Amino acid sequence: MNIRKIEHLGIAVRSAAEAEKLYAEALGLSVVARETLDEMKLRVVKVASGETVLELLEPLEGETVIRKFLAERGPGIHHICFEVDDVAAATEELKRKGYSTVWEEPHLGAGGRRVNFLRPKECGGVLIELNEPARGVTS
Amino acid sequence: MNIRKIEHLGIAVRSAAEAEKLYAEALGLSVVARETLDEMKLRVVKVASGETVLELLEPLEGETVIRKFLAERGPGIHHICFEVDDVAAATEELKRKGYSTVWEEPHLGAGGRRVNFLRPKECGGVLIELNEPARGVTS
Repeated sequence: MNIRKIEHLGIAVRSAAEAEKLYAEALGLSVVARETLDEMKLRVVKVASGETVLELLEPLEGETVIRKFLAERGPGIHHICFEVDDVAAATEELKRKGYSTVWEEPHLGAGGRRVNFLRPKECGGVLIELNEPARGVTS
Repeated sequence: MNIRKIEHLGIAVRSAAEAEKLYAEALGLSVVARETLDEMKLRVVKVASGETVLELLEPLEGETVIRKFLAERGPGIHHICFEVDDVAAATEELKRKGYSTVWEEPHLGAGGRRVNFLRPKECGGVLIELNEPARGVTS
């Protein structure tokens, strides 16, 4: 598969507004989005660092994945997302190589990107996401 | 300060050779270095993903920082390093903004890069390194 870049890092935070103070005000990174994702029950601030986006992920009431991570490990880097040309092909290739993916087939994620995840227990504790640019969009 | 990119991610691993199988053989990233850093007591495999390097950090006998991280949290992403134009100026700017850095003045790190670190407890649990290109080297 052809990994183009680290598309984003997901960082679990208790407060996206507080985290924005560090990454935008102190470190000077540009805020590219502030979103409330009702379906995923997350408040997200995205800042850009070169070709990679840092997603500051604050759980809202009812959210479980980031909330559980915060409860168990405290705030910190939650996952790394690599951009590939074709997530379906990458999923098949990884399965052939003996890895299991969270979904049999890629799901449609935020921004129209197809995504899949590898399992941290097969990846040295790192949660790895793979995504591809939305169709018709050049990243 | 002017952050150019995520220069590298440090990933704590139990075995750099095993981690290389994931990042290079399965994900197809290029290995750019395999090093044993005697002074730091680390075995390091570096793989490139776009403009960012992933440093797979395996502690050798006597090493404490990565070893302690592995013992306390298990393997996973250990730190994020942003490349800036001038680490000394960035250090001063962050101190003016109320952050403390690990060193008063930047230290000379691997590859002749000046480096400094922010403290995870002031940065939402994330260990942030700042470095600058070695003098005379264009990155």
